[in-house]
Amino acid sequence: MREILEAVAAGELSTAAAEAKLRGYTTDEAGRFDAARTHRSGVPEAVLGADKTPAEVAALAGTSLETTGRLLATRLDETQISAVRDHLAETAPAAETRTHDRAGLLVAHAPDFEPPDLDAQVGVVTAGTGDTVPATEAAVLAREMGATVDRIDDIGVASLARLLDQVSTLRTEDLLIVAAGREGALPTVTAGLVDVPVIGLPVSTGYGHGGDGEAALAGMLQSCTALSVVNIDAGFTAGVQAGLLARQLSSSRSER
Amino acid sequence: MREILEAVAAGELSTAAAEAKLRGYTTDEAGRFDAARTHRSGVPEAVLGADKTPAEVAALAGTSLETTGRLLATRLDETQISAVRDHLAETAPAAETRTHDRAGLLVAHAPDFEPPDLDAQVGVVTAGTGDTVPATEAAVLAREMGATVDRIDDIGVASLARLLDQVSTLRTEDLLIVAAGREGALPTVTAGLVDVPVIGLPVSTGYGHGGDGEAALAGMLQSCTALSVVNIDAGFTAGVQAGLLARQLSSSRSER
Amino acid sequence: MREILEAVAAGELSTAAAEAKLRGYTTDEAGRFDAARTHRSGVPEAVLGADKTPAEVAALAGTSLETTGRLLATRLDETQISAVRDHLAETAPAAETRTHDRAGLLVAHAPDFEPPDLDAQVGVVTAGTGDTVPATEAAVLAREMGATVDRIDDIGVASLARLLDQVSTLRTEDLLIVAAGREGALPTVTAGLVDVPVIGLPVSTGYGHGGDGEAALAGMLQSCTALSVVNIDAGFTAGVQAGLLARQLSSSRSER
Amino acid sequence: MREILEAVAAGELSTAAAEAKLRGYTTDEAGRFDAARTHRSGVPEAVLGADKTPAEVAALAGTSLETTGRLLATRLDETQISAVRDHLAETAPAAETRTHDRAGLLVAHAPDFEPPDLDAQVGVVTAGTGDTVPATEAAVLAREMGATVDRIDDIGVASLARLLDQVSTLRTEDLLIVAAGREGALPTVTAGLVDVPVIGLPVSTGYGHGGDGEAALAGMLQSCTALSVVNIDAGFTAGVQAGLLARQLSSSRSER
Amino acid sequence: MREILEAVAAGELSTAAAEAKLRGYTTDEAGRFDAARTHRSGVPEAVLGADKTPAEVAALAGTSLETTGRLLATRLDETQISAVRDHLAETAPAAETRTHDRAGLLVAHAPDFEPPDLDAQVGVVTAGTGDTVPATEAAVLAREMGATVDRIDDIGVASLARLLDQVSTLRTEDLLIVAAGREGALPTVTAGLVDVPVIGLPVSTGYGHGGDGEAALAGMLQSCTALSVVNIDAGFTAGVQAGLLARQLSSSRSER
Amino acid sequence: MREILEAVAAGELSTAAAEAKLRGYTTDEAGRFDAARTHRSGVPEAVLGADKTPAEVAALAGTSLETTGRLLATRLDETQISAVRDHLAETAPAAETRTHDRAGLLVAHAPDFEPPDLDAQVGVVTAGTGDTVPATEAAVLAREMGATVDRIDDIGVASLARLLDQVSTLRTEDLLIVAAGREGALPTVTAGLVDVPVIGLPVSTGYGHGGDGEAALAGMLQSCTALSVVNIDAGFTAGVQAGLLARQLSSSRSER
Amino acid sequence: MREILEAVAAGELSTAAAEAKLRGYTTDEAGRFDAARTHRSGVPEAVLGADKTPAEVAALAGTSLETTGRLLATRLDETQISAVRDHLAETAPAAETRTHDRAGLLVAHAPDFEPPDLDAQVGVVTAGTGDTVPATEAAVLAREMGATVDRIDDIGVASLARLLDQVSTLRTEDLLIVAAGREGALPTVTAGLVDVPVIGLPVSTGYGHGGDGEAALAGMLQSCTALSVVNIDAGFTAGVQAGLLARQLSSSRSER
Amino acid sequence: MREILEAVAAGELSTAAAEAKLRGYTTDEAGRFDAARTHRSGVPEAVLGADKTPAEVAALAGTSLETTGRLLATRLDETQISAVRDHLAETAPAAETRTHDRAGLLVAHAPDFEPPDLDAQVGVVTAGTGDTVPATEAAVLAREMGATVDRIDDIGVASLARLLDQVSTLRTEDLLIVAAGREGALPTVTAGLVDVPVIGLPVSTGYGHGGDGEAALAGMLQSCTALSVVNIDAGFTAGVQAGLLARQLSSSRSER
Repeated sequence: MREILEAVAAGELSTAAAEAKLRGYTTDEAGRFDAARTHRSGVPEAVLGADKTPAEVAALAGTSLETTGRLLATRLDETQISAVRDHLAETAPAAETRTHDRAGLLVAHAPDFEPPDLDAQVGVVTAGTGDTVPATEAAVLAREMGATVDRIDDIGVASLARLLDQVSTLRTEDLLIVAAGREGALPTVTAGLVDVPVIGLPVSTGYGHGGDGEAALAGMLQSCTALSVVNIDAGFTAGVQAGLLARQLSSSRSER
Repeated sequence: MREILEAVAAGELSTAAAEAKLRGYTTDEAGRFDAARTHRSGVPEAVLGADKTPAEVAALAGTSLETTGRLLATRLDETQISAVRDHLAETAPAAETRTHDRAGLLVAHAPDFEPPDLDAQVGVVTAGTGDTVPATEAAVLAREMGATVDRIDDIGVASLARLLDQVSTLRTEDLLIVAAGREGALPTVTAGLVDVPVIGLPVSTGYGHGGDGEAALAGMLQSCTALSVVNIDAGFTAGVQAGLLARQLSSSRSER
Repeated sequence: MREILEAVAAGELSTAAAEAKLRGYTTDEAGRFDAARTHRSGVPEAVLGADKTPAEVAALAGTSLETTGRLLATRLDETQISAVRDHLAETAPAAETRTHDRAGLLVAHAPDFEPPDLDAQVGVVTAGTGDTVPATEAAVLAREMGATVDRIDDIGVASLARLLDQVSTLRTEDLLIVAAGREGALPTVTAGLVDVPVIGLPVSTGYGHGGDGEAALAGMLQSCTALSVVNIDAGFTAGVQAGLLARQLSSSRSER
Repeated sequence: MREILEAVAAGELSTAAAEAKLRGYTTDEAGRFDAARTHRSGVPEAVLGADKTPAEVAALAGTSLETTGRLLATRLDETQISAVRDHLAETAPAAETRTHDRAGLLVAHAPDFEPPDLDAQVGVVTAGTGDTVPATEAAVLAREMGATVDRIDDIGVASLARLLDQVSTLRTEDLLIVAAGREGALPTVTAGLVDVPVIGLPVSTGYGHGGDGEAALAGMLQSCTALSVVNIDAGFTAGVQAGLLARQLSSSRSER
Repeated sequence: MREILEAVAAGELSTAAAEAKLRGYTTDEAGRFDAARTHRSGVPEAVLGADKTPAEVAALAGTSLETTGRLLATRLDETQISAVRDHLAETAPAAETRTHDRAGLLVAHAPDFEPPDLDAQVGVVTAGTGDTVPATEAAVLAREMGATVDRIDDIGVASLARLLDQVSTLRTEDLLIVAAGREGALPTVTAGLVDVPVIGLPVSTGYGHGGDGEAALAGMLQSCTALSVVNIDAGFTAGVQAGLLARQLSSSRSER
Repeated sequence: MREILEAVAAGELSTAAAEAKLRGYTTDEAGRFDAARTHRSGVPEAVLGADKTPAEVAALAGTSLETTGRLLATRLDETQISAVRDHLAETAPAAETRTHDRAGLLVAHAPDFEPPDLDAQVGVVTAGTGDTVPATEAAVLAREMGATVDRIDDIGVASLARLLDQVSTLRTEDLLIVAAGREGALPTVTAGLVDVPVIGLPVSTGYGHGGDGEAALAGMLQSCTALSVVNIDAGFTAGVQAGLLARQLSSSRSER
Repeated sequence: MREILEAVAAGELSTAAAEAKLRGYTTDEAGRFDAARTHRSGVPEAVLGADKTPAEVAALAGTSLETTGRLLATRLDETQISAVRDHLAETAPAAETRTHDRAGLLVAHAPDFEPPDLDAQVGVVTAGTGDTVPATEAAVLAREMGATVDRIDDIGVASLARLLDQVSTLRTEDLLIVAAGREGALPTVTAGLVDVPVIGLPVSTGYGHGGDGEAALAGMLQSCTALSVVNIDAGFTAGVQAGLLARQLSSSRSER
Repeated sequence: MREILEAVAAGELSTAAAEAKLRGYTTDEAGRFDAARTHRSGVPEAVLGADKTPAEVAALAGTSLETTGRLLATRLDETQISAVRDHLAETAPAAETRTHDRAGLLVAHAPDFEPPDLDAQVGVVTAGTGDTVPATEAAVLAREMGATVDRIDDIGVASLARLLDQVSTLRTEDLLIVAAGREGALPTVTAGLVDVPVIGLPVSTGYGHGGDGEAALAGMLQSCTALSVVNIDAGFTAGVQAGLLARQLSSSRSER
């Protein structure tokens, strides 16, 4: 700030220009930080499909791609995915588009978009096929933020052998996101076998008492091995957390 | 019933005697069955310490020992244990008395009491020291019903090695009671490693969300390996269930 | 293990072969045990219909039948049942197929499949017609694991006479699964009348406070007669538990 | 009202006196009705011990006895009972005082108090000794309101014979209050055996999931036999309901 | 019983006939009582529409009408009502049929059915139009059991004047069922204004926290005026309770 | 009252007329107050769409407009909105009608309706687009009651800058309604930045644990800055509260 | 801001001084606002007794009195009240101190403290004596913020007459805080009788289901008359809300 | 493994020695990994005070210090802290001991213990003094694992200025643990202002609905800024997570 003021004092900067700059730094600061942060943190803005018409989603998706060079749309149903694809085919034919139908995800990059590339590796683990949707959401988020993501699937504790077979792989990751529904024991058992941080991602499978992921969430919060946890089905949050950690690790590695 | 009626018709049985017999078979039947069942099932009546004065517990304990030849008192505090011991020392000096102080349990046998002896083996497993009290309650109940009980302690999933070291032992049991608090994952993981039935016993350890055993209970009910479950801290129930199953197994073995 | 090592020392076994054997015994051990256990325990793998398209269920069903000689598909809707039947008619015309439409169950056996046959008898009891679906799931599971299953239906406590009429039958079973919704009192009352172990199966009937089976579950967990319990509507779990116990009993009987 | 107005018109009543009368009938009406109703309904005002000092309870108790000729104090601890007894011994030595120590109840009647006497009979039933306190509260309330109260204790469903032995007695009552804790099945089973109305009184026994009477309450609300229910441990409410019904019955009988 | 036995002893009764009679009195007793009780208590069996196909409901309805002379079908949707009407038009054209479409109720009487007629009057009160369905269910049940039913509608506490206008009417009833949703204050306020027993019937209106009738239920259980309560939307239960009480009152009145 | 009585005494008023007047002041008083209050308070009666057919809603809407000069219909779906519009087009073509489609709201004024006009300003704030529906409901209610309403949208705490940018605007309002879903932090943060009263309006966004607005509600109730709160999605209630406060403020200002 | 910048440009202000000013306006702005707001809003800082030693509370109390001229200490036990009184007797003998022992409140004013004085009147209403503590907390807070507070006690809905007697008084208040426990119906009924805004204050009385104030809170949130609500026992929050509204009203009145 | 086998084949290793080695690598592997992991991960074993006598805690503490060179005892009361200090004074007088009395923590290092030292910085943030205990637990854990820990206290959202003043400090940390009770908004707001990962630590402050930390936990799980979360008061878990992440960062930095 002093630099700006000294420039004003030196007549190098008009008071109007200084006001603009300082407003940015002061009253409007948060807005600028906000913009800066979006850029620096690499957390992509997401377009949520829930409670929107296909046309609304498509319009928002187009705007997002146009203004940020990237589109991340989540929790889309089939009709919404089609609407977005059609809209992009027309408005942004050069964009590279990928969909994850089961997970209701659609990602698009403008031709000139340079995705971040971090030197950090995140393992995304599932107990069973019921965990695919939030795990994929987490994986896509972490990848979009620049991390290398490995998927290790179907190693639930009912067949401990499959988990034990993967232990050495799990230990090579910088960080693990472990998704599990029903009783949600996999993150607990995994965290006892590795030294890297584990983020538990409870999944809304299971019926009856403790169903809809509540037993899994409560179990992860109570875990006798230390876990950090996100909400039920919150693959988005887990992915962002992993992405932020990956950025820290990557920047540590590049401090050399 | 027809036999009784024919005996009446034949004048071999007075109507009064027949009425008594038939009433026994009918109105009073449940009572008789009840008595018979207590004898046959070997489920000991328990004196609960909760909400009773030491003197009340001591008196009930004395009566129980005198009438059934055995005393099983549960959920006693230190004062109650002392009161019962003093009472028995005076009224039943020849009885054999054992206490499990931490578990608040006291068992006494009259000199002529012949405890049941079943040809069946129950493993009682704990994840950690916090599970001792309900596990001991379960073990004592199963033993009093005649089962051979093995204790396998401190093999919680945080250190999977200890559990894996015990797998071959666990597989030799006819039945397992597995006690665990916090996230309660041990019964789930154990049931994936053995072929014998597993009864999950959730324990009221843990604080915060899902504390007091609720996460453990919900997790066991949601278990991806098939468990049957008892209520939080319900070692008594788990022990009785194991005892009943042990009786079935033992009687199967003696059908030879 | 020493044998293997001695064979290596004696030059009778190559180090590569020994490594394979030992890995199997160690790292891969769980996998082998897993396979062995599936075979030994007789617990059939189930294909769940929930959240799958008819085509997906049909494909999985076909694979299951082909690889294990048996298919058990649960929680199917009508369309899924049709899809599976059509698929099997084409791919496995010789298989014997049975459906339980109301319960959403489909079982198929390959011509050469030899179902297990246990010397043990499981009673599956319902309080009313609302309990049919989970009770049938339990019964089919227990039967597929080899137990003889008796159904005793519609003996809810509102008409105690019907229950009392069945007491002598109930006492002949080795084990009872008792399904009840609403207040779920039937397992409690039944367990007071018989000496065999009772597994309570709460059912998601009832509306208002404690509806969806929560009152029934809580009541069974609180039962003043000792019950073991499975989750709401978890007929599958109850059936597997009964099957495992039946195996223990049957093997006890065949120890002769 | 017209009578009053005609008296005013006739000059037989001053406008001031008429205003007083009419205000009583209008603005103050509720107050008068209130007083009238207390008298007519026979529901005694109760002094609650909870959150009051012994001195405060004693003073309130004295006032209640003095103004209404009766004292009903509930949820007293030992010190409060002593304080009230001492106070009454001094201030109302002629009053007839009875205490129910375990239930924390104290009832006193002034020498000239004429307790109501109804021609109606209420059965107060308990499943076990844990139900004594609220059952006694209910019984005392119903008695103070004038009903004849029969106690039928310790007939919980774990020993169905004891309940069946009492069925004919239960059927002679005009109304039943049935108290039960844990799973609370007794009111449900009882209502299936009798034709008279049953009020379920859930009791705060039991630990773990559904403990503190919540399972019993939920079960009674879900009962497959039609019950009306009061809150957990609300013996006071059950007793008042029974008293009001007894008044209706008694007045029906005296309509002759 | 002695009479039967003496008849056998005297040769006046064959052992087979005696067995039948005694079984009826003993093992089968509950069944007979059951039948007798259905007759005496006047509680109609209800056919529930929930989870049944229109054809199933129609068939059950026909049987019920044929065997008991009366049909009470509840929780029907429009299709089920049509199916039942069509079925009855064909199979029982002489029956008198009434439907309450909004409440999903259908009642039919065979031509020779003599409905019970009790000398007792039940007031069924609603706070607003949202309470109509369960209130109607309660009213129909009470009427079918023979009570005279008065409806007092739309007197919720938001406009206290409407309630106060009805107080004198409310006081003429023998018993009140008061239905209310949202905060459920009406039964509490009503019970403070009348001397007759009040059954609170919470209704599943309201959204957000405490919605679906949970706030109303909890409030009625906590009521500072003594209420007995049934579950949310349990008009059936409230009606049966009222019917049973009406029977007691009516029989008291006819004891003359 | 005395005046009336004196008129009777003076023979100026018949007893019948006096009775009518006094009844109005007493028994009927509440009714009159009720009418008076609706007029004075300016709280419009609302027609709720939930659980009504389009025809029913349309009929009620027509009556409301006809009798009060205004229609406020809430929670309408598209079909209901059409039905009401068509009905009004026919029956009240001169009325001025506005709809808020997303919020399911429809307001109509008869040509001669004079809406209240208060000298008070209410700010209605949203955290994000998910809060639009209840915020609009609140805003429309407050406006219909006569307040000037400002909307300040999309200033959720994730981008604190946007909120800080609006602080000076927020401080100019007399009162704020702040709507927020998920964690619901916005009202808490806002109340720390302004001196005017803040009503927190939790919104049913969010999935998993604490979803459906429960986390937002609990957080607002626990707020470390003092908030008053309405139920989840209860925009209607928030708007009425704001309208009542605006009336008080406006009348204070006009006391001059 | 431009003024400052122009002063810098004109050399009238050093860059350091400008930086300080601007930082104050920007980064430090919140701090300044904070101080200003405490002064302007009149919300006193409170010292909470919970989880503090008597010595700690006394020290904090002394500091608060010294720095702000006023002390408001809440949720104190007897020992803490004594400790604070002793501390103030020594350190601030001239201060005017008042305690509300039952409510655990202590207020002190330095001799030169000028309490705010608002032209607004708040009614604080209780249903019964159990509501005294939070109602007093609310009343003290509102008074300390300058409002005139009227207490209207013991007008719970069980005796509607007492409430009706107070209606005209209630209508003279600018705003009502209505405290009630158990079913919490009083605020709902009150809001139907007055035109002023009502803040519902649920109180943690009552036991069993819905106890600890949960039924009262849920009922107030569901109220069919529009209430704003604070958390259970949150008299502090209710008082601050009332104080803020009173300030708005008072300032409206002084705008003259 | 092949090396061991080749050594056996070459006769360089006895079969017994090889078996020991391989068992270690296989059956006992987990145990070895466990030991190795404790060493590598730097997560200290903790002695919990809860449910232990002072003597038991002291003995365990002594053993822990002796065997690992370090003691970390948590959740101790005053008596337990004294007992441990006395025990260590006697048995390990050379150890360096620090206590955190309010947090119930005691840490001791043997003279030759070399604490880990990581090149990573963790910020531990509190909203208010009520958050001190779990925040200190987290800070101590992270420090014992080698991280540099900064404390930033008392910046709750009620006074946003204090938080904004600390933003630049917060941005210099590698990772933040943010503790908050009541509504728990601080982690949400903080995460919107920084780019580093934030672990939310809910604290069990607050009373009434959502009290005991449940509102804070639910709010953090629902946060509109992406947080990872630990259970209520789980400072230990938060500290371990931070320590593990710090290890990853530190090792990334030392990869140079």
